[in-house]
Amino acid sequence: MKDDRENAVSRTDRTIHKVVDELCRSDSYELVYHRPTEEKVMPSLDALTEIVERLRSVLFPAYFSDSEMSLESMPYILGAHIEKVDRLLTEQIKRGIGFSGDKEYWRATLECEERARNLSRKFIAAIPRIRRLLATDVVAAYEGDPAAKSTGEAIFCYPSIKAVTNYRIAHELHALGVEMIPRIIAEMAHSQTGIDIHPGARIGERFFIDHGTGTVIGETCEIGRSVRLYQGVTLGAVSFPKDGEGKLVKGIPRHPIVEDNVIIYSGTTILGRVRIGKNAVIGGNLWLTSDVPAGMRVVQGRQTDPVIMISP
Amino acid sequence: MKDDRENAVSRTDRTIHKVVDELCRSDSYELVYHRPTEEKVMPSLDALTEIVERLRSVLFPAYFSDSEMSLESMPYILGAHIEKVDRLLTEQIKRGIGFSGDKEYWRATLECEERARNLSRKFIAAIPRIRRLLATDVVAAYEGDPAAKSTGEAIFCYPSIKAVTNYRIAHELHALGVEMIPRIIAEMAHSQTGIDIHPGARIGERFFIDHGTGTVIGETCEIGRSVRLYQGVTLGAVSFPKDGEGKLVKGIPRHPIVEDNVIIYSGTTILGRVRIGKNAVIGGNLWLTSDVPAGMRVVQGRQTDPVIMISP
Amino acid sequence: MKDDRENAVSRTDRTIHKVVDELCRSDSYELVYHRPTEEKVMPSLDALTEIVERLRSVLFPAYFSDSEMSLESMPYILGAHIEKVDRLLTEQIKRGIGFSGDKEYWRATLECEERARNLSRKFIAAIPRIRRLLATDVVAAYEGDPAAKSTGEAIFCYPSIKAVTNYRIAHELHALGVEMIPRIIAEMAHSQTGIDIHPGARIGERFFIDHGTGTVIGETCEIGRSVRLYQGVTLGAVSFPKDGEGKLVKGIPRHPIVEDNVIIYSGTTILGRVRIGKNAVIGGNLWLTSDVPAGMRVVQGRQTDPVIMISP
Amino acid sequence: MKDDRENAVSRTDRTIHKVVDELCRSDSYELVYHRPTEEKVMPSLDALTEIVERLRSVLFPAYFSDSEMSLESMPYILGAHIEKVDRLLTEQIKRGIGFSGDKEYWRATLECEERARNLSRKFIAAIPRIRRLLATDVVAAYEGDPAAKSTGEAIFCYPSIKAVTNYRIAHELHALGVEMIPRIIAEMAHSQTGIDIHPGARIGERFFIDHGTGTVIGETCEIGRSVRLYQGVTLGAVSFPKDGEGKLVKGIPRHPIVEDNVIIYSGTTILGRVRIGKNAVIGGNLWLTSDVPAGMRVVQGRQTDPVIMISP
Amino acid sequence: MKDDRENAVSRTDRTIHKVVDELCRSDSYELVYHRPTEEKVMPSLDALTEIVERLRSVLFPAYFSDSEMSLESMPYILGAHIEKVDRLLTEQIKRGIGFSGDKEYWRATLECEERARNLSRKFIAAIPRIRRLLATDVVAAYEGDPAAKSTGEAIFCYPSIKAVTNYRIAHELHALGVEMIPRIIAEMAHSQTGIDIHPGARIGERFFIDHGTGTVIGETCEIGRSVRLYQGVTLGAVSFPKDGEGKLVKGIPRHPIVEDNVIIYSGTTILGRVRIGKNAVIGGNLWLTSDVPAGMRVVQGRQTDPVIMISP
Amino acid sequence: MKDDRENAVSRTDRTIHKVVDELCRSDSYELVYHRPTEEKVMPSLDALTEIVERLRSVLFPAYFSDSEMSLESMPYILGAHIEKVDRLLTEQIKRGIGFSGDKEYWRATLECEERARNLSRKFIAAIPRIRRLLATDVVAAYEGDPAAKSTGEAIFCYPSIKAVTNYRIAHELHALGVEMIPRIIAEMAHSQTGIDIHPGARIGERFFIDHGTGTVIGETCEIGRSVRLYQGVTLGAVSFPKDGEGKLVKGIPRHPIVEDNVIIYSGTTILGRVRIGKNAVIGGNLWLTSDVPAGMRVVQGRQTDPVIMISP
Repeated sequence: MKDDRENAVSRTDRTIHKVVDELCRSDSYELVYHRPTEEKVMPSLDALTEIVERLRSVLFPAYFSDSEMSLESMPYILGAHIEKVDRLLTEQIKRGIGFSGDKEYWRATLECEERARNLSRKFIAAIPRIRRLLATDVVAAYEGDPAAKSTGEAIFCYPSIKAVTNYRIAHELHALGVEMIPRIIAEMAHSQTGIDIHPGARIGERFFIDHGTGTVIGETCEIGRSVRLYQGVTLGAVSFPKDGEGKLVKGIPRHPIVEDNVIIYSGTTILGRVRIGKNAVIGGNLWLTSDVPAGMRVVQGRQTDPVIMISP
Repeated sequence: MKDDRENAVSRTDRTIHKVVDELCRSDSYELVYHRPTEEKVMPSLDALTEIVERLRSVLFPAYFSDSEMSLESMPYILGAHIEKVDRLLTEQIKRGIGFSGDKEYWRATLECEERARNLSRKFIAAIPRIRRLLATDVVAAYEGDPAAKSTGEAIFCYPSIKAVTNYRIAHELHALGVEMIPRIIAEMAHSQTGIDIHPGARIGERFFIDHGTGTVIGETCEIGRSVRLYQGVTLGAVSFPKDGEGKLVKGIPRHPIVEDNVIIYSGTTILGRVRIGKNAVIGGNLWLTSDVPAGMRVVQGRQTDPVIMISP
Repeated sequence: MKDDRENAVSRTDRTIHKVVDELCRSDSYELVYHRPTEEKVMPSLDALTEIVERLRSVLFPAYFSDSEMSLESMPYILGAHIEKVDRLLTEQIKRGIGFSGDKEYWRATLECEERARNLSRKFIAAIPRIRRLLATDVVAAYEGDPAAKSTGEAIFCYPSIKAVTNYRIAHELHALGVEMIPRIIAEMAHSQTGIDIHPGARIGERFFIDHGTGTVIGETCEIGRSVRLYQGVTLGAVSFPKDGEGKLVKGIPRHPIVEDNVIIYSGTTILGRVRIGKNAVIGGNLWLTSDVPAGMRVVQGRQTDPVIMISP
Repeated sequence: MKDDRENAVSRTDRTIHKVVDELCRSDSYELVYHRPTEEKVMPSLDALTEIVERLRSVLFPAYFSDSEMSLESMPYILGAHIEKVDRLLTEQIKRGIGFSGDKEYWRATLECEERARNLSRKFIAAIPRIRRLLATDVVAAYEGDPAAKSTGEAIFCYPSIKAVTNYRIAHELHALGVEMIPRIIAEMAHSQTGIDIHPGARIGERFFIDHGTGTVIGETCEIGRSVRLYQGVTLGAVSFPKDGEGKLVKGIPRHPIVEDNVIIYSGTTILGRVRIGKNAVIGGNLWLTSDVPAGMRVVQGRQTDPVIMISP
Repeated sequence: MKDDRENAVSRTDRTIHKVVDELCRSDSYELVYHRPTEEKVMPSLDALTEIVERLRSVLFPAYFSDSEMSLESMPYILGAHIEKVDRLLTEQIKRGIGFSGDKEYWRATLECEERARNLSRKFIAAIPRIRRLLATDVVAAYEGDPAAKSTGEAIFCYPSIKAVTNYRIAHELHALGVEMIPRIIAEMAHSQTGIDIHPGARIGERFFIDHGTGTVIGETCEIGRSVRLYQGVTLGAVSFPKDGEGKLVKGIPRHPIVEDNVIIYSGTTILGRVRIGKNAVIGGNLWLTSDVPAGMRVVQGRQTDPVIMISP
Repeated sequence: MKDDRENAVSRTDRTIHKVVDELCRSDSYELVYHRPTEEKVMPSLDALTEIVERLRSVLFPAYFSDSEMSLESMPYILGAHIEKVDRLLTEQIKRGIGFSGDKEYWRATLECEERARNLSRKFIAAIPRIRRLLATDVVAAYEGDPAAKSTGEAIFCYPSIKAVTNYRIAHELHALGVEMIPRIIAEMAHSQTGIDIHPGARIGERFFIDHGTGTVIGETCEIGRSVRLYQGVTLGAVSFPKDGEGKLVKGIPRHPIVEDNVIIYSGTTILGRVRIGKNAVIGGNLWLTSDVPAGMRVVQGRQTDPVIMISP
C-alpha cells in the first residue's frame, strides 16, 4: 500500500513538472501572456475600485461613507478624497497608456507621466459637472418609479444610479482620450448591476433605467434628456462593416440615436443608426431596426391576436 | 523643464481647491447630500450583509458556515447568530426609520429605539416560519430542474434559493412596516443573481426561478403556490396613474396576480393587474397584458410561421 | 418607563429562547440541515475562489497577478500556483464526493482521498489544453467586437472571457466526473457576469458571447467552433420527460446542437434537441423550437409589419 | 468501534452543556462580567488604534501614510484625519466615562455626550502643542544616538518616538480628565515597545529613551527637559501608603522627580519621591532611593572591585 | 545602455536559479525543513490566536467582544465560543501530537484523533476553574497597584492579566500532556507583554506582575498564593546538569519555590531550586541563589553605601 | 438647549479650522514633515513585513507557510518566494536610498534603480549562506535550553530564532550598504521579541539568546561562535566621543568584543570596547567595563554577603 502511495505522489509531481514545461513554451503563452517589458504594468482593479468609491463619496456626500459629515468638515473630507483620487488616477491612466499605447511613445516615460497627470487633472475639474448631471438622474429615478420613497433611497440603493454614476465617470475619461480605464470602470458596474453602458455612449441629463438587468447601450449611442429605459433593452448595432481585408471597421457610428423624453419598455431591441424621435414611447419585447418619428407610440403588431391560448 | 513641472503641480492643486469650493456650495450639494442632522445615520451595508449571512446560517444550518455543527451544539450556534442578528437589526431598523421618517417623529429618540427593538423582535419570531417556506422552495428547485442532483446542491448553489431567501427576509420586514432596509436586502440579491423581487410582492410556498437573470417581480404582485418562473420574466406594471398634480400615485395594486401551479417560460413579460389562472402554462418571449383563464397553455401566435428563413 | 423597558428586554429574550427551541426541533431542520456525519464537510467557496483565481493567473500570465513576471521567473510562479491548486483542488474534490456520494463509498476514506488526488492530477494535466482553447476564445472576442481595442483588453475586462474561463475549467472537471464543484464554479461566473453556462455543455473553440447578461446554455448543449452569441440568448430544454413515478428523468439530451460559425443575436430563445446548421445566422428576440438548415438566415416573421406605430 | 465513537461525541457535548451552565451562574461570572446596563459599552481597541494612527499621520506628515502629500494637499489630508479623530475620540471618551463613571452621572446621557464632545475638542486644540514637543523629542533622539543617521530615521523607526508619541497623546487626555482611554493608549505602546510610561507622568521636551525595553515611568513622575534614559530603567514607588482600612491610598505623589539634562543608564532603579538634580548622570544597574544633588555623577560603589573573576 | 540592462536582468535570474538549486539540496535543507510526511501539518498560529481570543471572551464576558451581552443571551454566546474552541483545539492538539510524537504512534491516525478529542474535552471542562483563578488574579491586580481605578480596568488593559490568562490556559493544556501547543500560547503572551511564563510552572491564586516587561518564570517554578512580582524579575535555573554523553538532562526541578504572600521587586534574579519563604519581601536588582526564610525582608547589602557620587 | 448645541457644533469646527491652519504653517511642520520631493517615497512597513515572512518561509521550508511542501514542489515554491522578494526588495532598497541619500544622487533615477537591483541580487545570492548560519543557531537553541523538546520547536516558537533571523537578514543588507531598511527589519523583531540587535553587529554561528526580553546588542559589537546570552543583557557603549563642534562622532568601534563559547547571564551590562575572552562565563546582574581574560568565570563581588535579610 505504502509503495503505491509514494508512487502516486511522485506521479503527481511529474505531472506538475510536465505541465509547467508545457505552459512555459512560447507557443503556449504567446497569445495570452502580458509581457511586462518597459514596465508596462497592468491597471489595478483594486485601485480603480477605490477611485470609484471615493468619487461616489464625493458625488453623494454622507451617503456611502463619512456618514456624519457636517457642512464645516465637508471641504476637508471631499478635498482628501479628491487628492487621493488624483494620485491614484494618474497612476492608472499611465498604466492604461502603457497597456494600449505603442512602444515608442511609452518609452518617453516622463512625457507619458506628464500626460497622465494632465488627464487626471482635467477629470478632477469635471467632477462638479458630473455631479450636476447625476443630481438630475436621481430626480428622474425618484419620479419615474412608483415604488421609490425618496431621492435618498434612489441614491443609496438603485442599480440605475450605481451604473449611471460609473458610466458618467467612465464617459468623462473616455472623452478625454484615456485608454482602457473607462472600459474597466464600465465593466465594474456591469458586473454588479447587469447594466452594460459603453463609456463612448453620449447620454443626456435625467436618465433612468428601471431594474436594468440585461440592458445594453452601445459605443456610439446618442441619448437625449429625460430618457427612461427598462430592463433588457438593447441599443445595439445591426451589422459590422468590414474593411478590404475582412476586418471589422472599428469606431464608426452604428448605434441608435434616442431623442428627449423617450421611454423604452423592457426587452426591446433597437439596432443600427436609427433615430427614435422626441417623446416616442416604445413598447416592450420589440425588435426595431428603423426610425420612429417623434411622438409615436410603438407597440407589437396585431395586438388583438398576440398569443394563442390552448385549453388543456 | 523643472519649472514647467512645478507649474504643473501648482496648477493641479489649484484645480483641487477650485473643485472643492465648487462642490461645497449649496447649489451643488443640495440634491445629493445626506444631511446628518439629528443623528440620522445611513444604514450600513456591512451590517446588513452580516445580518443576511447569519440568517442564512440559521435557516440552512451547517451549509454556509459552522459546517461541523452537531445536533448538540446547534442551539448555541443558532442562538448566538440570532442574538447578534437581533442587535444588528435593531440598529439598522432604527437607521431606516431615521432615513425615511419625518423629523418630529425621529426626535423622540427613545420611542424610535423602542419601536426598532419591537420590530426586530417580531422579525426574530418569524424565522421558523420563513424557514418552513424556504424548505418548500428548496424542494421545488430540486424537483423543477432536471440538472439538480440533490436538495443540498440547490441550497448551496442555486441563485433562486439565494434570491428567494433574501426576498422572504425582506418581505417579512416590509410586512412589519420596516423602512428602507427591505429594499436594500432585495437589491443585494439583485446584484448577485440578477433576480429583482420587490419586498412588497406576496409569494406562496414552493417557488422556483430557474437561471433567473433578468427576472423582475413588481411591488404589488401576488403569486400563489408552486409557481415556477424562468430567466428574463417580467411581472410589471402597465401604466402609472398620476394624481392631480401630475405626480405618480404610489403604492396602488398594479402588478399581476399569478395563481397556483403556474409556469412562465423565459423572456415573457406580463404587465398590469391581470390574473393568470391556476395551472396555466405561459410560453416564452411573450407579451401579455390581459387575464389568462385557469389551465390554459399560452403560446406565441402563428406557431406555424414564427420566423422567416432566408437562404444565402 | 423603566419597568416597561426591562419588560421589553425580557420579552425579547424569551423570543430568542422560543425561536431557538423551535428551530432545533427535527421537523423544522430536517429538510434544510446539512448533517455533518462522517466528516462530510461542505465545499469551501473561499477555496474555490482561490483555485479559480490562481488558474486564471496561470492561464493568462501577468494579466491578473504577478504583473512583472519575466520569462525567467515564469516557471517558478506558474509552478507555485499549480502546486497550490493541486492541493486545494484535491480537498475540494473530496468534499464534493462526500457531499454527493453515497454513504458506503465515502466510508472508504482512503480510497476516496486517492480518487480525489487522481482527479486533481488529471485536471492539472489538462491545463495546457484549456489554455489553447481560451487563446482561441480571446481572438474571437477581439475579432467579433468592433469596440475591442486589443486582445489584452478582452482578456482583462470582457465578461465573456471570464465566464468562458470558468466554464472551460468547470467543464473539464465535469468531464472527469467531479461532483458538485463544477456547478459551483459555473455559478461563480454566473453571479459576476449574468452568463449561465452549465458545466455539462460542450463548446468548441473560438467561442464568444457579447455583453452576455442573461444568456443561458443548458446542460446537454453541443456548440461547434467559432460560434458567437449575444446577451439574453437561451439555449434551453422544451420539456422535461418524467418517469413512471412522475419524477423528472435527469441527464438525457434535451438542449440544442449549434454547429460551427453560427451567430445568434440577443434575446433569442432556442429550445429542445434541435440542430442549428453551420453558418446559420439567427436574428434577435426569436423563439425557435425546430431545426435550422445550414447557412440559413432566420429573422422575425413579417418584417414589413413588425410593430404598430400610433400617433398621439 | 462506531458505538464508542458516538458515545464519545455525546459525552463531549454534555461537557459543553455542563460548562456553559456553570459559567452562567452568578458566582462564576460576578467578578469578571462587564454588565452592559445603561449602554455602558466597552471602549474599542480598534477605534483607539485608528485614532492613534491618524494622529501619528497628522503629527508627522507624509511619514506613516499619505506619503506623497504636497504642501497644497496638506490641509485637506490633515483636516480629514482630524475630523475623523474628533468623531472617533468623542465616542471613545463617552465610553470611558461610562466605564468608569458612577451610574447616576451616566444616566444623564445628553450631558455625558456633551462632556465627551467638549473633551475631544480640547484635545484637538492641543495637537499643535503636542507636535511642538515631539519635534524636540525627535531632535533629542537624533543627537543622543550615535547610530542615528537622520531625524527622519528616528521618526520612522525608533521605539522611543513611538512610545513618547503615545505618551504625549495619552498625557494630554489624562490632564483633561478623560477616563480609562489614556491608560489603554499607553498600554498599546507598552506592548509594542516594552516602554511603560504612565499617562499621569509629566515629561518635559527633548526626551529620549534609547532601546527602551523594560523602562517603566510611574504615574506621579516629574521629568524635566533634555532627559535621556536607557533600557530597563525604573522610576517607581518605594512603598504604598494604606488608609485606615488597609487599602492602598491612590494618587499621591510617590515617584521620582528628575530634573533637566539628567542621563540615567540602563537597568537602574530609582524609587520614591526622590529628586535627581539637574545635569546628574546616573550609572547603570543601580538601586537608588534617595536624592541626588545637581551635577553629580553616580556610579556603583566599589568600582575597583565590582566582580570576582575565578579562573577555571 | 539597453544591452547592459538586459544583461543585468538575465544575470538576476541566473541568481535565482542558482539560489533555488542550492536551497533545494539536502545538505542545505536537512536541518531546517519540516518534512510533511504522514500529514504532520504544523500547528496554526491563526487558529491558536482565535482559540485564545474566544477563551478570553468566555472567561471575561462582555469585555473583549459581545460587549452588549445580556444575562439571557449569555448561554448562547458562551456556548458558541466554547463549541468552536473545542473543534479548533482538537485539531491543534492533533497537530501538536504529530509534530512532537513518534512516527509509529502518529500512524494510528484514528487513535490520535480520539486522544486529541479527549484532551480538548478535558480542557473545556476546566474552564470554570480557570476563570475562578483568574478572578482572584484580577482582584490582586486591582489591590496591588495604586494606579488601578477598578477591576474592570485591570481586566481590560493590564499586561499581567493578559499574560496570566495565557499562562493559565497553557498550563492546563501542559498538565493534560498536550504537546507543543502550550508553549506557543505562552510565547504569544511573551511577544505582546514581555512576560515569559513557562507553561510548566505552577502558580497559585491572586497572582500579579506589575508592569512585567522582562519577567521570566521557569519551567519548574512553584509559586504560592498572593505572590506579587515586578518587571524584570527572573526565576531561573542556576545550572543545567548533563548526562553521561554531555547532553542536558531535561525536565528536572531546577527553578525556585516561592511561597505565599511573597513580593519580589523589579530586576531581581533568583536562580536554582531555592525556597523563598512565606511573606518574604525581596528587594529589587538583587541576585539570589539561596533560600530565604519566611517573613524575611531582603535588601541589597550595604544600603548605606550603595553608590558613589562624584561631583563634577 | 438646541441653540447651545448648535453653538457647540460650530465651535468644534472652528477648532478644526484653527488647528489645521496652525499645523500647516512651516514653523509647525518643518522638523516633522517628510517632503516628498523628487518622488522620495517612504519605505513600506507592509512590504518589508512581507519580505521577511517570505524569507522565513524560504529559510525554514514548510514551517511557517506551505506546510505540505514536498521535495518535488519545493523548487517552485521557494523560487516564487525568492522572485517576489527580489522585486519587493529592489523597490524598498530604492526607497531607502531616496530616504537617506543626498539629493543629487537620487536625481539620477536610472542609476539609483540599477543600484537597488544589484543590491537585491547580491542579497538573494547570500540566502543559502544565511540559512547555513541559522541552522547552527537552531541547534544552539535546542542544545542550550533544557526546556526545548526538538529543533522544530525552537524554529517554530523561540523568540531567539525569530530575532536572530531578522538580524541575519538585516546584517547582510547592512553589510551590502543598504540604507535604512536593515534598521527597520531589526526594529520589527525588537517590537515582537524585546531583543534589540543592531544590524551592524557581527555575530558568529551557533548564537542563542534565552528568553531575550530586554537584551541589547550595539552597532559595533563583535560576537564569536557558540555564544549564549540571556534576557536583559546589554552589550553597549560606555561613552560617545564628540567632535570639535560637540556633535557625536558616529560609527566608530565602541561596543564589546565577545569571543567564542562565552555565556552571559541575565541582566548583565557590558560597556565599551572591552574584550570578553574565549570560554568566559559572565554571571547575571553585573556591570562590566573592562576586559575579561579567556576562561574566566565572573561573579558578583562578595558572594558571601550579597544581600541583607532583615527579620520583621
